[in-house]
Amino acid sequence: MKTAIIGTGTVGRTIASKLAELNHDVMMGTRNVSDKLAATSEDNYGNPPFSEWHKQNSKVKLGSFAEAAAFGEIVFNATNGAASITALIMADTKNLSGKVLVDIANPLDFSKGMPPSLLPGLNNTNSLAEEIQKTFPETRVVKTLNTMWCGLMINPGLIGGGDHINYICGNDEEAKVKVKKILNDFGWKDKSILDLGDITGARTTEALVPLWVRILGVLNSGAFNFRIIK
Amino acid sequence: MKTAIIGTGTVGRTIASKLAELNHDVMMGTRNVSDKLAATSEDNYGNPPFSEWHKQNSKVKLGSFAEAAAFGEIVFNATNGAASITALIMADTKNLSGKVLVDIANPLDFSKGMPPSLLPGLNNTNSLAEEIQKTFPETRVVKTLNTMWCGLMINPGLIGGGDHINYICGNDEEAKVKVKKILNDFGWKDKSILDLGDITGARTTEALVPLWVRILGVLNSGAFNFRIIK
Repeated sequence: MKTAIIGTGTVGRTIASKLAELNHDVMMGTRNVSDKLAATSEDNYGNPPFSEWHKQNSKVKLGSFAEAAAFGEIVFNATNGAASITALIMADTKNLSGKVLVDIANPLDFSKGMPPSLLPGLNNTNSLAEEIQKTFPETRVVKTLNTMWCGLMINPGLIGGGDHINYICGNDEEAKVKVKKILNDFGWKDKSILDLGDITGARTTEALVPLWVRILGVLNSGAFNFRIIK
Repeated sequence: MKTAIIGTGTVGRTIASKLAELNHDVMMGTRNVSDKLAATSEDNYGNPPFSEWHKQNSKVKLGSFAEAAAFGEIVFNATNGAASITALIMADTKNLSGKVLVDIANPLDFSKGMPPSLLPGLNNTNSLAEEIQKTFPETRVVKTLNTMWCGLMINPGLIGGGDHINYICGNDEEAKVKVKKILNDFGWKDKSILDLGDITGARTTEALVPLWVRILGVLNSGAFNFRIIK
């Protein structure tokens, strides 16, 4: 399967590596390909130069946002949440039309200090995923994986025998089935994937992230998640 | 210990019963005592008439908001979140000054349908508990127990051997120690009480409630909570 990842940060790289390992044909999308390949220092988010990571992951292609979106049958949004809408507009509506877009980003606002809040206009009665769905009505947006450290996204068995929760939501049932299959390939058991219904569920899972960051500050490790006890 | 509960709904009744069982001297505070005692039908929130509950819990006193706040050495806010600030202002600043106020309410907004969002101005970069702390600067506000069904608040052992999470936060360390002691009496083990730091932690735990309601809609039972897996 041809799969695109929009965004080349830690989360995007983690997903891209795993998908390549699962024999997906992967293209990552970035704002400026030659700049990205030429960079020799950390990016704005503290990620090591892309070229270093790419040496170990040479099967992964790199293209512009638009090239990656055009390439992928399924597209992951792994950009910084504050930049997601802009990046996806650069990826171009026609390249995203009809496709499943897996939104794993969060609209975190670090401008008011730590721990972060959510961006104005993208919280409580709205969410990043809903905003993407509204901006690209022909795209089938599925929100998942956004409530945890990226190391767990692709390796849930790292803690608690993989028995902890990953939420999924979206308006298109068939799209959710496709994404669940990829989640299964990542190691998620069906009983650990909780379907919250339509895309408005994203406002509740994105809202969990500031609590997650707060707990991170107490535990000093991102390798944790939540199990539902009943 | 003399303990006050502001609010006479299901949550307030649950806490009051348990505290009376633990031999606290309990007074509940309500807007209009004679109306509350005379009521023979359900209140606005669907609770059975107070007098019915009171027959089984006759040790619990009933007073005005101000009488209850003056009576209590520790005060629980168990009002509807949308009415909390008004109720506490009626309870009177001087009756709350210097006291520990345990805020277990949530600023839920049902006006936009189900599942609820949080009230404008009391979410993301603010919270009900922070608003109470700002309104009553001499009161020592502690937020806890607000992320679960009230049946679990006073009986965590009902599920998972009691091994699931209850968050606590507040600016006053001594106040948190006092509240943790009551939580222990409710059945909460120290390892299940996670201190998120100062009162701004409340914006992250209150933000969990819309997700909680969404999960409730899937599970069709409120008898669930979260365990942190690491």
